[in-house]
Amino acid sequence: MADGIGTVQDARRTRGGRNQRREIRLAGGQGPGRPYIQRGIPTYDILSEESLIRIETTAERILAEIGMELRDDPESMQLYRQAGAQVTETAPGVWRLKFEPGMLREILKTAPAEFTQHARNPANSVQIGGRNVVFAPSYGSPFVMDLDRGRRYGTIEDFRNFVKLSQSSPWLHHSGGTVCEPTDVPVNKRHLDMVYAHIRYSDRGFLGSITAPDRAEDSIEMARLLFGAEFVDQNCVIMGNFNTTSPLVLDGVTAAGIRAYAAANQGSIHLPFLLGGAVAPLTIAGMVAQGLAESMVSCALTQLVRPGAPAILASFFSSMSLRTGSPTFGTPEPAIGSLVMGQLARRLNLPLRCAGNFSTSKLPDGQAMQQSMMSMMSAVQGGANYVLHSAGFLDGLLSMSYEKLVMDTDMCGALHAYLDGMVVNDDTLAFDALAELGPGQHLFSTAHTLRHYETAYWESALDDNQPWETWDEQGGIDYAQRANSRWKAILRDYEAPPIDAATDEALLDFMARRKASMPDMWY
Amino acid sequence: MADGIGTVQDARRTRGGRNQRREIRLAGGQGPGRPYIQRGIPTYDILSEESLIRIETTAERILAEIGMELRDDPESMQLYRQAGAQVTETAPGVWRLKFEPGMLREILKTAPAEFTQHARNPANSVQIGGRNVVFAPSYGSPFVMDLDRGRRYGTIEDFRNFVKLSQSSPWLHHSGGTVCEPTDVPVNKRHLDMVYAHIRYSDRGFLGSITAPDRAEDSIEMARLLFGAEFVDQNCVIMGNFNTTSPLVLDGVTAAGIRAYAAANQGSIHLPFLLGGAVAPLTIAGMVAQGLAESMVSCALTQLVRPGAPAILASFFSSMSLRTGSPTFGTPEPAIGSLVMGQLARRLNLPLRCAGNFSTSKLPDGQAMQQSMMSMMSAVQGGANYVLHSAGFLDGLLSMSYEKLVMDTDMCGALHAYLDGMVVNDDTLAFDALAELGPGQHLFSTAHTLRHYETAYWESALDDNQPWETWDEQGGIDYAQRANSRWKAILRDYEAPPIDAATDEALLDFMARRKASMPDMWY
Repeated sequence: MADGIGTVQDARRTRGGRNQRREIRLAGGQGPGRPYIQRGIPTYDILSEESLIRIETTAERILAEIGMELRDDPESMQLYRQAGAQVTETAPGVWRLKFEPGMLREILKTAPAEFTQHARNPANSVQIGGRNVVFAPSYGSPFVMDLDRGRRYGTIEDFRNFVKLSQSSPWLHHSGGTVCEPTDVPVNKRHLDMVYAHIRYSDRGFLGSITAPDRAEDSIEMARLLFGAEFVDQNCVIMGNFNTTSPLVLDGVTAAGIRAYAAANQGSIHLPFLLGGAVAPLTIAGMVAQGLAESMVSCALTQLVRPGAPAILASFFSSMSLRTGSPTFGTPEPAIGSLVMGQLARRLNLPLRCAGNFSTSKLPDGQAMQQSMMSMMSAVQGGANYVLHSAGFLDGLLSMSYEKLVMDTDMCGALHAYLDGMVVNDDTLAFDALAELGPGQHLFSTAHTLRHYETAYWESALDDNQPWETWDEQGGIDYAQRANSRWKAILRDYEAPPIDAATDEALLDFMARRKASMPDMWY
Repeated sequence: MADGIGTVQDARRTRGGRNQRREIRLAGGQGPGRPYIQRGIPTYDILSEESLIRIETTAERILAEIGMELRDDPESMQLYRQAGAQVTETAPGVWRLKFEPGMLREILKTAPAEFTQHARNPANSVQIGGRNVVFAPSYGSPFVMDLDRGRRYGTIEDFRNFVKLSQSSPWLHHSGGTVCEPTDVPVNKRHLDMVYAHIRYSDRGFLGSITAPDRAEDSIEMARLLFGAEFVDQNCVIMGNFNTTSPLVLDGVTAAGIRAYAAANQGSIHLPFLLGGAVAPLTIAGMVAQGLAESMVSCALTQLVRPGAPAILASFFSSMSLRTGSPTFGTPEPAIGSLVMGQLARRLNLPLRCAGNFSTSKLPDGQAMQQSMMSMMSAVQGGANYVLHSAGFLDGLLSMSYEKLVMDTDMCGALHAYLDGMVVNDDTLAFDALAELGPGQHLFSTAHTLRHYETAYWESALDDNQPWETWDEQGGIDYAQRANSRWKAILRDYEAPPIDAATDEALLDFMARRKASMPDMWY
């Protein structure tokens, strides 16, 4: 490791992993969590090459003939123009960018197919791209929910709780970003408290702010205090999650934020949030083509600023209730779209963020978990490398749920075992296990069973698998209530990972100065 | 259609489909249900050919070196021996059968890769095998559950209710078999009431009894009364679901039942129920090898009785809680096993039954739907052709749940859309939709949206996708309670499909005579 991260090195050497080990025991897992998953099963490729090419061709045609609108960021406009885009100013500060087919693919060739996001605990650094899968909690909900207090606006205390709960799960790999909106902190200052909470209460990678260029810069500056400026210039230690303004608009705040992260050599995610029928076509093939087009334009900006800066192609697909016009999540059509997006990302040789534990349910109930599972399966089967919204998502992303978070992290555990796939060797084929006692004899006592019984299966910490009578005698508790007890127990037992005192002081000092430098803003 | 089914022809002509149309409206679907699904996406093949061959080789080795035990059915023993099996009597009426590698594969070549199970409503006949997927409700639970009355032993009234609820869903294709055990009817007579309930309250295909050879014969005889003997001899109109007694035993009642169905040219399912660590190795590769071996032996018997008789390769994989020893369902390892079983079935060119909506939960809660979805996805992605346990399964198969049934059938609807995959053509690629208004403009009013808004997405009848405020004002009802209201509404609105009066009378007369011919037995 480079010198730059020496500020937290001692802490890492002496206590790294202790908290995680305890949490693994809590989680009931049979072994340690992993810093990220390396998939043992292939991706699920459902579309023919011919159809993939038709989608790619449509994306290129959208960009060549309709183009993307850029607003209020002349610097980005210049970068695109210099790279060869045809630029037309359609109103003051509004430009239409058109791209010759193939141009963006050429620009994107300098983006890494795989990169490391360093965590302050090196054991928790994640590899993004290739066969790797990284789970992070949900992002961006203004409300929070739990079974005791119902739905309410999120606060910084909720934010810290979600960071702690995420950190405590061995089945997440990344601390995420805006795990909820801390609405009790001024809008122009909350990024400081959010970044600090990730640094202080987690020792995993995290996302910084993107809501204004100076907030992006503050986020990166705090990462420099943590890792050292030199290390940060050469390594990804923070990422920003950027939305295009679909359909086909890149606004100036977003573009400036992308430039800030790329200039600092930090990672960025380029996410069209596509709600079919509203900001994208209702038909999934068209939605995917649009998503590809928008994300390519957004990703390309990073390479124009600093070739080689890490960029993640992304898509968020949502359908719509045809009866009411409400957005729907966790439905089959977006799941199909996500699988195809995976195929397209691999053809571009870029890391992918796609799907997550999506649901429109207002409670951590059967609907929530059915929808989540359909969506999440598409993420992991489709080869998404970074899965934001892996835990906590309810209410169409308007609410972050305490109970859902622990349900989802448990599901993420199951997905670790799923992605390991099937090991086929003489031991697992177990001929001897059947031969030992022969037909009609239970295998409980065979040498094979005794050798494997502690590790053969992933073990849920939350599912009830007892006989009905036992479950009934113990009060007949449902899944949501068990989750309620569980998140409280995890918070009660939580211990913050150690942090170097001087680093902590530097971070607090930076935050105090930044906060003092501007009046509170609440919008 | 052949003459033999003339007994119900009039009814089909005049009223076929009316009930289904009404139910589709109830279900909120955007179009008619289908008699079965023809998948539009490929199967998910996760294992290399090399590993598949290792599993196949292990299965062959199990059969050649350990062998399968056959109990109490000398006729089957003779059939296997005549076909070339090495047979050793190890105790009176107990034989060890050993099969040279390749022998069973050769025998299975006469089994059809795909066949039709005819329903009394020809519009509901299903095609089993190939790219087709058929959903049937859960099978075999002694208990039933609903939110009002909790868990209790099933009755014939429950049985009829489940047949009616299944028939009312446009997203199931088959009426199943023992949808619950009607424990209020004598054991030796309940098969008559069960088969009659399927015939009377559904007009889809169904499964007959297998619990004793004469009950199998009665089931087939009732099918003859419905379809005509000649038609039945040439066409599959009923199937039996047969379990091997794992590990590696085929008991005499099962073998005789298999012979009865095969002799009548009727379908049969050959299912090892494998609980890892108990009746199969803990490791999934070995469990799959054993499942393949047992199912091949069982399937082969049909071809020895009547070459060309329809047979379905099958497996039911379950894991175990390593902490408590309890069976676990809907976990990741069996899901992986089911995907591999699909690959193996296709290499054998046999239709497959595998997985379903499995769960150990005692309530229709988040655990139930998460586990179910993981299991059910493996069925549909793995290419299972007949998915028993598609609806209602709770409590590790000990209970059939009214609420879960309607949750699962709704999920089956989602899976219809999922299996349709992505249509890629000029219309769905929707370039015009984006071009019409250009960047930054919502697509609500585009011609493309107006053309597709009624059919673009599958619409759940049970999910709540409303804004939180609306949901809250309407009482904040959770998924389970909505399911509770829904099954009651469906039963209230249920209308039995018409049946020819003479056929009905013949069936009732047959049942009365059979019941009068024997004393009640309760074990």
